[in-house]
Formats: sequence, structure tokens, C-alpha cells
Amino acid sequence: MDIASFVTSLLTSFIIFVVLVLVFTWLSRRPSNAPVYYPSVLLRGLDPWEGRGRGTRSPVGWIRQALAASDADVVAAGGVDAAVYLVFLSSVLAILALSAIVLLPVLLPVAGTDHALEKSAGYAPNVTEFERLALGNVQDGSSRLWAFILAVYWVSFVTYFVLWRSYKHVSNLRAAARSTSDVKPEEFAILVRDVPIPSPDQSIKDSVDSYFRALHPDTFYKAMVVTDIKKADKIFQEIEGHRQKIAHAEAVYAESKTTNKPEGTKPTHKPGFLGLIGKKVDTIEYCNEKIKELLPKLEDEQKNTLSEKQQRAAIVVFNNRAAAASASQTLHAQMFDEWTVAEAPEPREIIWSNLPRKMYDRQTRQTVVYLIVFLTVVFYMIPITAISAVTTLDKLKEKLPFLKVVVDQPLVKTILQAYLPQLALIVFLALLPTLLVFLSKSEGLPSQSHVVRAASGKYFYFIVFNVFIGYAIGASLFSALKQVINNPPGIFQTLGAKLPGNATFFLTFVALKFFVGYGLELSRLVPLIIFHLKKKYLCKTEDEVRAAWAPGDLGYNTRVPNDMLIVTIVLCYSVIAPLIMPFGVAYFALGWLVAKNQVLRVYVPSYESNGRMWPHMHTRIIASLMIYQATMIGIIGLKKFYYSAVLTPLLIISLIFAYTCHTRFYPAFAKTPLEVASQELKEMPNMGAIYTAYIPPCLKPEKLEDVEVFEDAQSRTTSRAPSF
Amino acid sequence: MDIASFVTSLLTSFIIFVVLVLVFTWLSRRPSNAPVYYPSVLLRGLDPWEGRGRGTRSPVGWIRQALAASDADVVAAGGVDAAVYLVFLSSVLAILALSAIVLLPVLLPVAGTDHALEKSAGYAPNVTEFERLALGNVQDGSSRLWAFILAVYWVSFVTYFVLWRSYKHVSNLRAAARSTSDVKPEEFAILVRDVPIPSPDQSIKDSVDSYFRALHPDTFYKAMVVTDIKKADKIFQEIEGHRQKIAHAEAVYAESKTTNKPEGTKPTHKPGFLGLIGKKVDTIEYCNEKIKELLPKLEDEQKNTLSEKQQRAAIVVFNNRAAAASASQTLHAQMFDEWTVAEAPEPREIIWSNLPRKMYDRQTRQTVVYLIVFLTVVFYMIPITAISAVTTLDKLKEKLPFLKVVVDQPLVKTILQAYLPQLALIVFLALLPTLLVFLSKSEGLPSQSHVVRAASGKYFYFIVFNVFIGYAIGASLFSALKQVINNPPGIFQTLGAKLPGNATFFLTFVALKFFVGYGLELSRLVPLIIFHLKKKYLCKTEDEVRAAWAPGDLGYNTRVPNDMLIVTIVLCYSVIAPLIMPFGVAYFALGWLVAKNQVLRVYVPSYESNGRMWPHMHTRIIASLMIYQATMIGIIGLKKFYYSAVLTPLLIISLIFAYTCHTRFYPAFAKTPLEVASQELKEMPNMGAIYTAYIPPCLKPEKLEDVEVFEDAQSRTTSRAPSF
Repeated sequence: MDIASFVTSLLTSFIIFVVLVLVFTWLSRRPSNAPVYYPSVLLRGLDPWEGRGRGTRSPVGWIRQALAASDADVVAAGGVDAAVYLVFLSSVLAILALSAIVLLPVLLPVAGTDHALEKSAGYAPNVTEFERLALGNVQDGSSRLWAFILAVYWVSFVTYFVLWRSYKHVSNLRAAARSTSDVKPEEFAILVRDVPIPSPDQSIKDSVDSYFRALHPDTFYKAMVVTDIKKADKIFQEIEGHRQKIAHAEAVYAESKTTNKPEGTKPTHKPGFLGLIGKKVDTIEYCNEKIKELLPKLEDEQKNTLSEKQQRAAIVVFNNRAAAASASQTLHAQMFDEWTVAEAPEPREIIWSNLPRKMYDRQTRQTVVYLIVFLTVVFYMIPITAISAVTTLDKLKEKLPFLKVVVDQPLVKTILQAYLPQLALIVFLALLPTLLVFLSKSEGLPSQSHVVRAASGKYFYFIVFNVFIGYAIGASLFSALKQVINNPPGIFQTLGAKLPGNATFFLTFVALKFFVGYGLELSRLVPLIIFHLKKKYLCKTEDEVRAAWAPGDLGYNTRVPNDMLIVTIVLCYSVIAPLIMPFGVAYFALGWLVAKNQVLRVYVPSYESNGRMWPHMHTRIIASLMIYQATMIGIIGLKKFYYSAVLTPLLIISLIFAYTCHTRFYPAFAKTPLEVASQELKEMPNMGAIYTAYIPPCLKPEKLEDVEVFEDAQSRTTSRAPSF
Repeated sequence: MDIASFVTSLLTSFIIFVVLVLVFTWLSRRPSNAPVYYPSVLLRGLDPWEGRGRGTRSPVGWIRQALAASDADVVAAGGVDAAVYLVFLSSVLAILALSAIVLLPVLLPVAGTDHALEKSAGYAPNVTEFERLALGNVQDGSSRLWAFILAVYWVSFVTYFVLWRSYKHVSNLRAAARSTSDVKPEEFAILVRDVPIPSPDQSIKDSVDSYFRALHPDTFYKAMVVTDIKKADKIFQEIEGHRQKIAHAEAVYAESKTTNKPEGTKPTHKPGFLGLIGKKVDTIEYCNEKIKELLPKLEDEQKNTLSEKQQRAAIVVFNNRAAAASASQTLHAQMFDEWTVAEAPEPREIIWSNLPRKMYDRQTRQTVVYLIVFLTVVFYMIPITAISAVTTLDKLKEKLPFLKVVVDQPLVKTILQAYLPQLALIVFLALLPTLLVFLSKSEGLPSQSHVVRAASGKYFYFIVFNVFIGYAIGASLFSALKQVINNPPGIFQTLGAKLPGNATFFLTFVALKFFVGYGLELSRLVPLIIFHLKKKYLCKTEDEVRAAWAPGDLGYNTRVPNDMLIVTIVLCYSVIAPLIMPFGVAYFALGWLVAKNQVLRVYVPSYESNGRMWPHMHTRIIASLMIYQATMIGIIGLKKFYYSAVLTPLLIISLIFAYTCHTRFYPAFAKTPLEVASQELKEMPNMGAIYTAYIPPCLKPEKLEDVEVFEDAQSRTTSRAPSF
């Protein structure tokens, strides 16, 4: 890539960015767009324009507001998880900025005043300023390379320093959040899995009750056995669907009244398949009847579920937080595969169907999933190629004859033939995060947040190996892997040989990503269009409008690995081509600003894991750092500079640093310290409400007073044993 | 080694064994030897000849008794640890016996009917029967090798099967021991380390008290802060010494009276250095005065220690077992390096001086110790060679001129010059276990049993690497290591090439070890002689006689690694030269019998870790198995039989087996399951006695009622904070 096209591409994306920011400034000031630009604010019952200061109306008001918001504001708006994500961005920003401050003034002159590129005859006229200011311009074996070695040390120690401080900061954030005096159901409960098969005269509920009552006589409150709710949930969803239809139909009916027909038209629909088949019926009447029909069915099914469909897992509720924290950390049974306990997830993020999975089932699933992910990361090109081979145009025409008219156009044909493999690749890459979430869910993890963490880890490996290493080596990872098996350290030599040549590509990649990506993120053009379309043509009731602007959460499972890719790229090039650093700094500075704005105003967390994402981020930053260190050993070694071995201790230091952080900070993330759980509560907890929080919606009785009945139903069953 | 010398050496050791067993049978029947052959029985207050049945007087009575003793008898006599050691021996016996049953009838004919050795011309006349019946006699690439491959699979699966059953068995032993209704102080207490520096107006005792009272308001009983007892202990030991001297002197005095001098001679001694300098004094008077002088000093020092020398560690006592078990498993502080908790060791095995060590201190020490051990294992020959170079005879004569007369004898001179390096080696090897115990203690481990486990692990690596691999490869491990670094799997090819040639050496080694070793162990000749000498010339009081026959414990730190060496040798040769199997079976059958006898009658446990040694033994048996499997891949590969790769999955299966056992059984060894700790107690525990058990002897007040004072003293101190 020559300098002209580089500048062109940079300028283009910058212009796109400026346009998108202007669009954002203009659109976000129109009150009718508030649900798109301020959904989080609205949901918390605040007025987006009042109270929050004058800044909002000025074009840079959002920047001022984002800068002014404190940790507490962020936690209030987006929870600890969002705050931790911002800490992640600001930590990376700090690492890159502190590195750049030293690297730019030192390395640019050192590289720029050497002449390696000019000396290799014939290339001289093509040398761009960018290439002159990089490691490639330093001559082989030159003692100038010492500066580069010291730079690697500087970057590494800056990283350790920043990460250490950040881990401390996040630990405090987590502890502060966990020791608030609010009553949170998950702090009073533990999750029990692998309940052994009870004796035949006992129900599972009875055996859980008597086991925990015996071991925690003073602190046990109640246990709720997990049940198989598939059928009850199906009926429940059906009823909900009918209710929504009634609400929609009533709104349509009311609307039709206001026009010249005062009696209105009653909405009708065909009840058959997809609303296409059958006789037209009055929607409101029909649905009401259906609900009447289904309600007793649901009640029957609820009773049946509670007594007959008990599964071998339970949520056990304690009457104080310290007891629950202590119980979740204590080994209960002598056999490891019975009565395993863990901290209970939040009610809203529990994956009920995964809870009853047995330990060996979980282990097997995990192994299989890891294997699939490994194969996907290494061989993902093979199915893509196979698919694109199968889906040639001729095959497509055969299968879908109606495409023939379109496909036979010469222009369309050429384009399709050229891009079909790429199309398959793009579709695959777009579906990958969903696939990884699905795979992680199949492992048998108990909660949504855990699934997101697991999927995020898998995506990181995919993205770093394929996009970064794959592109840099310029070969399929498969052939790289063959080489790795034969000569493990060789991959870093190959990386060292290939990376410098690709500097401009990655620089453009980073620039594109932040200009266009953040522009789109900030302006929210896609949600805006969808919202207005839906509101105009589809939504009739308040609930439907609300669903149309529901912002969702930050989507950590793709967001974090994408950021991590940039971290890896910028770190790896930091010393090879220091000019990449300003772009990296800009990426994370802007990213932090935009993310803070979005956290404060847009996204609504769908769960709260109190920052359990952080240890994952931390480990992955260190992984990136180690890829960088190993690559640098390779690159400086290739420069025939045999002191490159001076860098080897850094790898060991990184491992020791990771280990130290793990032993020092991780336990407080994996477990709840008793200190934290023993904080005084503001009020006496309402134990009934805590228990009720864990009843799945489809099993909740209509009135909350009936919870007692719910519990009786769990205990009654076929039991002949005395009920406690 | 030819067949004649092999048989000779075998016969010699067998004769020695028979003689020693006869000596044992004869000596153990004489009542005056009872303290040597039945010390454990005597200490438990039983009569060795009464009650235990008629068998005792017959020559094979001890065998009958050992066979008849149940697990419960063993636990009663030697504790769970001894029972677990017997399970270890019987497990290995089962592995070898089950393997031999299949291997001998299958492999001996397969090897014996081939002709590889005869075909390699010139060697034919020297082929012994032993060599003909081994793997070496099978021709390269012959499909007979399939039998050997299947044999490796058989041995491996037999090992998995036996180990799995044994782990279950030991788990049950441990659970049974832990859930007895006896009150054991360690089950009510936890060990707290890394207590943070308290605020200046609080003593450490106060801060521990208030911290645990706040976190465990209902179950906290009392805390005892660890103090620096070095000075108090010195005075206490001095007083004890004087008391013993008085008792001895009084016995001597009483003896002198009975002879013709009715008034007797008062014993005297010189109080100066080593009893050589100074004026003679009356021992009884002198010592009584000294004690009178020291007692107030001790009391002062006790008070001073309790208030001023508090250390940042404590034993916290709870008022029930479940609370202690739960507390020891719960993370207390948010910062990992503060308030770390662990199960409390038994009072008698606590290493007080290690308790106050800070976490980072412990980690650093551990790293340094591991490094030293690694260097010792790999380079131990270097210092030995250096020492023997320095201690040449001439140097010795210079330093110790009085040796000149002896050394200048020509015969002595020749012997010394030839054996000095070997002597240095022998001294080093004799001191090694002590050195390893010292090193393990320096790691900062809190208890004696933990030190023994750690030292045993280190000794295992030393012994397997140096004796087995070192001898087999026939080179120093250092050069082997160089090779390993260049080509990791190469070591197993080298082993494969060298092992078969050394079969007879190792066979003789095993035979010698069990005939002579077990003969000496059973006959206890050395303790017998020492006991009789001491009794005759040194001991005057009952206590002194008792000390003379104190049997000590089994000494797991050398015993287990030595047995493990035999396991490794026999496993590795099981398929190469199946004739080694009967010797292995005999070693462990005899070992089990002798050890059971010694446990029942001789050794007295000095601590009880409830079988925590087992996971270590288990892991090391698997390590031996994996060395065996890897070696077999090398050996069969060298036979130009390319199906040897069929064995590779075994290594992976071994790892999976180890991992599965670890996740399944280990937690119940590392922690106390709540199920077990919640068993009902026979009687209300006497909390005062439990607390008192943890007071070090030198701080114990003369009367136990003064314990309150002890506690007050700990709290009083300089505290201005309200005392709880």
C-alpha cells in the first residue's frame, strides 16, 4: 500500500466519522428520538434533558457529560460490569499512552536516521516516510537495536504497572458493589447441583430440605428444587402471546373508532398456520377464549411440574448473607460428585435447563465444546471453502429456480461468481459469535454472564489466531500449525519476518475500525431507523413501543474480543512501527468516551456479575503482551542481533506477574469474602420476596400470597416421609 | 553379571534373611526385650503376651497376628496414616500380582521361543536362561511384539483399577476417622495467618478477637495469638534439663546407699563448659537452686511473651466442628494476602516458628527451596566430586595431624584413597533425607506432617532420577538433561536402549533390598543393642529407660520414596524382563507383612494427618506408571516395530485418570466436608481443654486453672480499646 492510498483511506474514514458525529448531534437533540439515544435514562425514570445540566443541548455536551460522570454514576446507570468495561478501556489507554510518550520521541529518531532501506539498492525511491520511521530501517546487527529492546521492556513494565493498579481498582469496585446494604436475592442463596438420587420414599425436595437443614440448622431458610418447566413454559408463552394479541387488537379497534366509523371495525385474523389458513375470527374474542382454555391447563401443568418433574438441582436460600457466602465455599459431601455447591446467579440470568446437568455430563460437554472450538479456530477455512464450492451459481439455480432471472444478468453473474466465497466467509464470521454463545451454553454453564465470559474467551482465540496471526503469516493457520508442531518457537520467527511488511495494513485497519465503527456506534443509525419504522407501522400498544426501543446490553462477548484484537495489534507493532501508537491511543480514548456515553444513556444491563469479566480481560491482555514479547524476540533475532535473548526473561516475568495477580486478587472474584458478606443490611430482608424471586415466571402463581401453596406443592408429591 | 554370581548373591541374602528372622523369633520371646519388640503395645497399656492370643509364642505367631488384624486394629495402634501406608503397600502388591498372573504365562513362552540372541552370532553360548526369557530375545519387527504391547495395556488398566478402588477405600478410612465422636482439638480450630498490622491502639490479640467475633458472632469461642516463644522455651528447656538431672542424681544417690555405705555418696558434677570446668558441686542442691532461680524468670518471660511478643498469626477456636470446618474453607478478607485461613494442625505437630511467616515470605522461600532441590537432583554429583577432591588424604593430614599415625599405615592409606569419594557420596546420601526435611521446614509449612509429605515428594524425585534413570542411562543426569533439552522425547529412547541390559542388576537390587532390609527391620538389631547398652550404663530413672526404647514413627519421608523406587523399577521391567515380577510381588507381600507387624507392635505415630499422605502416593504411582509407559514406547519403537505408537494413548489415559481422581477424591482430603464435620459428638466438648491443648508447653501455667490468666495476659497488654 503506497502512501497516497493510505492517506486517502484515512481521510475517507475520517470524513465518514465527522459526518456521523454531526448526524448524532443533530438527531439526538430531537425529543422524538429520545428512546433511541436515551433509553437507559428513560428506563431509570429520569428526564434526559432536565436535571442532567445544560450541557446536553450543546454539540459537545455529551463529551462534557461523559467526562464528568464518576464511577458511582456509571455503576448506577450500567452496573459494575459496565464500569469494569470502562476500566478495561482506560487501562489499555493508559498502557498505550504511557508507552507512546517514551517510544515516539526515542524510537522515531533512532530508526529515521539509519539507512537500511536506502542501502538495499533499488528500493530507495519507494521508501515512504512511514517505512523510514520503523524498525525495518535499522541495519542488521546495529547497536541501535538496544533502544528497541529497552522499548520492549518499557512497554512490558508499563503494562504490569497499569494492570496491577487496575486489578486493585476493580477489586474495590466489586467489593463496594457487593457490600451495599441493598437486599439482593442472589446473596442469600446458593446453587446446589448433583443432588444424589433420593431413597424411593423421599422426593428430591425432601432430601434437599433435610440435608441442608441438618448441615445448617440455624441458617437454612428454604430450598427450591429446580423443575423441568419446558411444558409449563410453553403454555405460559402461549397465554402471553394471546394477551399481547388482545392488547394489540384493542389498540387497533380503538384507533378505528376515532375515524368516521364510530362503532369501529373489530380486528380479525385467521387462526391457522402463520395466519394464512382457516376461517377469519374476531381476534379479541378468540384470544380471550383461548386464554380461558389455557389457564386451567397451566395451573394443572404447574402442579404437575412441581410435584412430578423435580430435577436433581436446587436453589437453597439462607436467612443471612454470611451464611450463604460461607455455605457456597464449603465442601458439603464427602464424594466430590454429589451435592456440589456454588454461588447462586441472579434470578434473571439463570439458565434453568442447564442446572440439572450432572457433573460428568458437564465435563464431557465441556471437552467436546473445546474440541469443536479448537477445530473451528484451526480449520475454519475448510468448511467455508467446501460451502462455497457447493454453492456455485449453477447449483443455486437448480435449487432455487426463481433466482434464475436475476442470476442470468451478466453483471450480477460476474459479481456473484467473484464474491460467493467471500460472501460465505462474511456470513460465517457474522454468525460466529452466536455460534460461540450457543456452544458455551451447551457446556452446561448455570448463568448467562458465565456463558458470555466463556464465549468471549473463545472468540478472542479465534480472532487473534485468524485475523492477526493468520493474516500476518499470510497463510492458513493450518499450515502454520504444522510448522509449530515441528518447531514450536518457529512461529515467532515467522511472525517476526512477516509482521513488519504488514504494518500499513494494520494501521489502516485500526484507523478504519475506530472512525467508522465508533461513528456508527455513536449515531445509532440502524436502531434509529428500525425504531421509527416499527413505531410507525407495527407498534400499537405502549408495551410494543417499549420493545421496539429496548436497547439491550453492551454485548461483551463480541465487544471485548474485538478490542483485544486492537490491543494485540497495537502492542505488537508498538516497537516495530511506533507510528501506530497514536492511532491506538486514539482508538481507546475515543472508545472510552463513546462507551461511557452509551453506558450512561443507552445500554441497559441484562445481568450483573459484579465485574467477574475482569480476570478474563486481565489474562487476555497478558496473553497479548506475551505474543508481543515472543514476536519481538523473533524480530530482533532476525536482525542478526544476538542480544535479542535479553528479552527472554520478560516472558518469565509475565508468567510470574499473571500468577501473582491470580493468587492475590482472583479469589475475591471467584468467591465472596466473608468480610464483604457480613456487612450490615439496611433493613430486615423480606425472605419471602427473596424466595419468590427464584420462581421461574411460568410457575409463579397469579397472586404472590400463593407462594406458600407453591412450596407445599413441591413438598407434597408422593412423599411418605415426614415433611419438615 | 553372569548367572552364577546372580544366584550366589541371591542365596547369600536369602540366608541372611533367614538368620535374621530366626534371631527375631528367638529374641522377641524374651520378656526383657519387650520394650524393643512391643513398645507400641506397652505404651497403649497392654500386656504383649496376654490377651493377644496363643499365637505369640509360636515362631510364626507374628505372621498369624498380622494377617488377623483388621483395619480398625491398625488404626487403633498406628493411626490412619499407618493404615494408609499399609493400603499403599497392599495396592502395589495387588497391581504387581494381578499383572504377574497374566504376564508370566503369556510373555515368558512368547519370548523364550524366539531366537534373536542366538542369531546375533558369537553371543549364543553366553545367553543365560534369564536373558532368553526377556524382551531382548524377540526379533526386531516380529509380530510377537503385539503380546508385549497388550501386556503394557494390561498392566496399565490393572493399575487404574486398583488405584481407583484404593482411593475409595482410603477416602472411607479418612471419613470414618474424621467422623468419630471423639473430641479432637484440631477439629474445633482453624489456623489464621497473615493477620494485618492492627491499628496502634489495638494489640494483635484484640484485632483477631474483634475480627472473628464480628464475622462468626454465634460460633466464635476464643482466639490464641501465636507468640515468639524462643526465649521462654529456652528457659523452660533449661529447667526441664535440671529436673532430669535431679531425677538422675537421686537415682544414683539411692543406688549408692544400698551398698556397704548406708549414707551413700551424693553425686557431684562440674557446672562449667561440658561438665569439664569449674568446682565440683552437689548436683541435687545445685540444680534445685538453679530451678528456684529460673522459675520466676520463666514466669516473667511468659507474661512478657504473651503481651509483647504477639505474632501476626493465631489459632481460632470455634464452639462446634461444623463451624470450624466451614470457616477454614471460607475466604475471609477481600485482599488475598490478609487473614488467610486453613485447617488447624494437631497441637503436637505444629511448627510454631513457621506460623507467623507472611504469605510473600512463604512464596519466596518455596521458590528458593524448589530451586535448590532441582539443582541438587540434577547436579548433586558436582559438590560430591568437589568435596572428595578437597578432602584428599594429604589435606586431611594437614588439618587433623593426630590422624597421621593411622593414615600412614599402607593398607589404611590404600583403602582410604580408593574409597574417599564413595565415602563422601555415602555420607551425602545418608544426610539427604535430613537435608530435605530441613529444606521443607524452611518453606514455612505449618505442620510436621506437611513437612514430611513435602520432603517425601522431593526425595522421590531425587531417587527416581538419580538411582533409576541415572543408573539406567549410565551417565550423569546432567548430560542426560542436556539431551532432554535438545530433544525432549529422546530420553525415553535412551532409556529404552539401556534398560534391558541392566535387568539383572536391578533384579539383584530388589532382592537384596527385601531380604536384608526386611530382615534388619524385623529383627531390630540396632535398636536392641542401643537399648541394652543405654539401660545398662546410662539410664537410672524410669523416664530415661522409657526414652531409651522410644520407638519413633514409621518415617514416611524415606520409607515411601524407597518403596516407590522399587515400584518404578518393577513396573518398568515388568514387560522387558517379566521374571522380575515374582521378586516385586515378594517385596511388597513381605513388606506389607513386616510393616503391619511393626505398626501393630513397634512404631508410635508422632502425628495424625488422617491419611493426607495418600494423594501424594497415588500421584507418584501414576508418575511411575507414566515413566514406564513412555519407556515402553521407546523400547518397542527401537525394536523397529512401528505399531509402538499404539501405546501413546496410554499416556493420555493416565493423565485423564489422574485428573479424574484429583477432581473426584482430592477435595475431601484437602478440606473437611461439612457432612463429616456435622456428626454428633459423644459428649459436650470441654472447650477449655481444647483451648489449652494449643498452648505451647513452655507457656503453660503450672496449674491448668490459670488458663484464664493466660488469656487475660494476652488481651491485657497495651490495649486501650475495649476488651471483648
